[in-house]
Amino acid sequence: MPEFLRLISPTDALSRWLAALPPGKTTGVENVESSSALGRILAEHVVAPHPLPAFARSTVDGYAVRAEDTFGAGPGAPAYLRLIGEVPMGRLPEMHVEVGQAATVHTGGAIPPGANAVVMLEDTQAVPGGEVEVLAALGIGKNVIREGEDIEAGERVLEIGACLRVQEIGGLMAIGRTRVAVFRRPRVAILSTGDEVVPAEAEPMPGQVRDINSHLLAALVHRCGGDPLTLGIVPDDPERLFLAARQAMDRADLIIITAGSSASARDNTAEVIQRLGTPGVLVHGLSIKPGKPTILGVAGDVPVIGLPGNPVSAFVVAGLLVAPMVRRLAGSRQPTITASVQARLAVNVPSEAGREDYLPARLEASPQGWIADPVFGKSNLIFTLVRADGLIRIPSEITGLPAGSRVDVVPFA
Amino acid sequence: MPEFLRLISPTDALSRWLAALPPGKTTGVENVESSSALGRILAEHVVAPHPLPAFARSTVDGYAVRAEDTFGAGPGAPAYLRLIGEVPMGRLPEMHVEVGQAATVHTGGAIPPGANAVVMLEDTQAVPGGEVEVLAALGIGKNVIREGEDIEAGERVLEIGACLRVQEIGGLMAIGRTRVAVFRRPRVAILSTGDEVVPAEAEPMPGQVRDINSHLLAALVHRCGGDPLTLGIVPDDPERLFLAARQAMDRADLIIITAGSSASARDNTAEVIQRLGTPGVLVHGLSIKPGKPTILGVAGDVPVIGLPGNPVSAFVVAGLLVAPMVRRLAGSRQPTITASVQARLAVNVPSEAGREDYLPARLEASPQGWIADPVFGKSNLIFTLVRADGLIRIPSEITGLPAGSRVDVVPFA
Repeated sequence: MPEFLRLISPTDALSRWLAALPPGKTTGVENVESSSALGRILAEHVVAPHPLPAFARSTVDGYAVRAEDTFGAGPGAPAYLRLIGEVPMGRLPEMHVEVGQAATVHTGGAIPPGANAVVMLEDTQAVPGGEVEVLAALGIGKNVIREGEDIEAGERVLEIGACLRVQEIGGLMAIGRTRVAVFRRPRVAILSTGDEVVPAEAEPMPGQVRDINSHLLAALVHRCGGDPLTLGIVPDDPERLFLAARQAMDRADLIIITAGSSASARDNTAEVIQRLGTPGVLVHGLSIKPGKPTILGVAGDVPVIGLPGNPVSAFVVAGLLVAPMVRRLAGSRQPTITASVQARLAVNVPSEAGREDYLPARLEASPQGWIADPVFGKSNLIFTLVRADGLIRIPSEITGLPAGSRVDVVPFA
Repeated sequence: MPEFLRLISPTDALSRWLAALPPGKTTGVENVESSSALGRILAEHVVAPHPLPAFARSTVDGYAVRAEDTFGAGPGAPAYLRLIGEVPMGRLPEMHVEVGQAATVHTGGAIPPGANAVVMLEDTQAVPGGEVEVLAALGIGKNVIREGEDIEAGERVLEIGACLRVQEIGGLMAIGRTRVAVFRRPRVAILSTGDEVVPAEAEPMPGQVRDINSHLLAALVHRCGGDPLTLGIVPDDPERLFLAARQAMDRADLIIITAGSSASARDNTAEVIQRLGTPGVLVHGLSIKPGKPTILGVAGDVPVIGLPGNPVSAFVVAGLLVAPMVRRLAGSRQPTITASVQARLAVNVPSEAGREDYLPARLEASPQGWIADPVFGKSNLIFTLVRADGLIRIPSEITGLPAGSRVDVVPFA
């Protein structure tokens, strides 16, 4: 096993981990109803079979006219047009608008042939004798969505790797794509280790603790689009851990081992990852707090991560490394956009240079904007995260921040 | 029906809508497995049945000692302590640490009685004869999590109305709460109207369009914790719309009508909401673009919203009003924290004073940070949203922003 003398940043670690995956690795494709595809990643290019809209439509209630017939019209100099009928909703108009004519049209209705603009009801006055008085001059195309203005027939509207958000579901429905090919959700095996760890439903004996991490990580994996397989608790025995991880490789696209935090547990995990396959261990130790004793590896085409046993550390590192790996395995090709809340620090915060710090914080509204109040506590204390609204990231070059500093807080989802 | 002469802001409209709900209205309670409760809202106060941790634990690998025995110790003046054994993981220690003694302990292991601090392995040196050389002075409690340091027995750790995020799932498991009471997901009826609208799976005839909004809104409702009931397409007939909405009231906690955008369709919707029950229509028209022709009402204890028929308008208003209402009906008592991305505008953006504008924008990375490039297009064009990463909000007092202005972009989830 190679020696790892230098801790590396989470960003560099993620790049190294992703780069070690076989190129083009995906999880396989399945066809699903578009109406249940929210959050899934597209596995096909989607091409529009027809233009959208399929016919020119009015954006207002009013009269379809030839714009030329309104040139020069205004409140003091109305144009008079002859009403030739009404466009029914949901049907193509049967009339043709000739010079000097107008047809009643509703919002969303089709523009009759001959017309090239719609004058709003508010800019007209009905006059007796089947005429309409137009009080405004219109440019060609005014208040009209032209055929294909949203998308053209044959246009590629969605690409492989696109995440299906609310609006993509709407877009698919608009072109009649009620089923769609998406990548299978990556299966993520979660192995918890530790002689002191018992299942959450058990009553711990003195000296034992419940398994928090399996459930914490399963929820996190689920939230970022993976399909968690919680495989239970393995004792602190390298051979049994190796066998459990070896079996997990046949079922999973990604393996998470929460390794306990003792030096021997960390060594077991690194040794097991190294034995599972090449290239083996890639990263051993991150320049981050909490989360330093993290191990990243790839065995064949299966990425493996050894997370610290402390739940807060496991949570922070999983957010930084597991979530983007799950999205990558799910087929996403889009970079993540991280949104944050601008806040001012309530208190002084110490930090060591050369290490990124992630500090849970509560956000409190004030007349001057958000106040970020750090929730200090050792990284074994899961309820420090429960009390917090998000994480403050303190970059590695910063050696501490005084109260009142502006910080970005990334809220928990 | 009262007259509504003044448009009101989305914030004021939401307050008025929420205030008209009967106080304490909830959707009923159900018991679920904590492991599948991600995103649900708690319907009980959760109290810790025991302290966490349940016993004092070491945070490092090292030796449990009496801190007093290390006072004055340093690299040049080691303290010598007698090793009396090792604390096994997962069991309570059987030894008692007396003056001048030390016991080997691993990270997470129990602190033996008598000891009150742990010296890290790195600060010691093994010496022959069953002794350990301590090269650092320790304060009392150093490297120890004391019993109850995370939570005390009997402490209320989660309140009614708390959203169960990843860390709450972990916290529940830590105290053995594998089942938990949550509020039932609010059922949200979605009625689409319009003579020109056909189901997404149909082949539209000339002049017809597919139903985008039912699916767009169902996805949005699902994402914010509701249970969508898409009840199909109702023709532009006030009596049929009234009957459909009346039936929906028996099944749903919230009714959405996407009403078409023509004046007559809007009037139909307002009239139907007014007839459904008191207090009836509360808001008719928002000072917002897109989304002005929005109607809010409450019939008995069921909130009803008439959304514009244009999908972009429906999407923007649903994000501002439907999502918080669904969360409120789901039992959430927490204010929403909106995170954003700081960006610079790529181009000039016009805006009218007295109206909030929401503009879809693409985010592009640059060496100077994010650039927000607005995706202009009429609000009927669903693919303007597909091309965008988020929305720029332009407050009502702003009359336009020059290229290069700093803007906050709220990314789409």
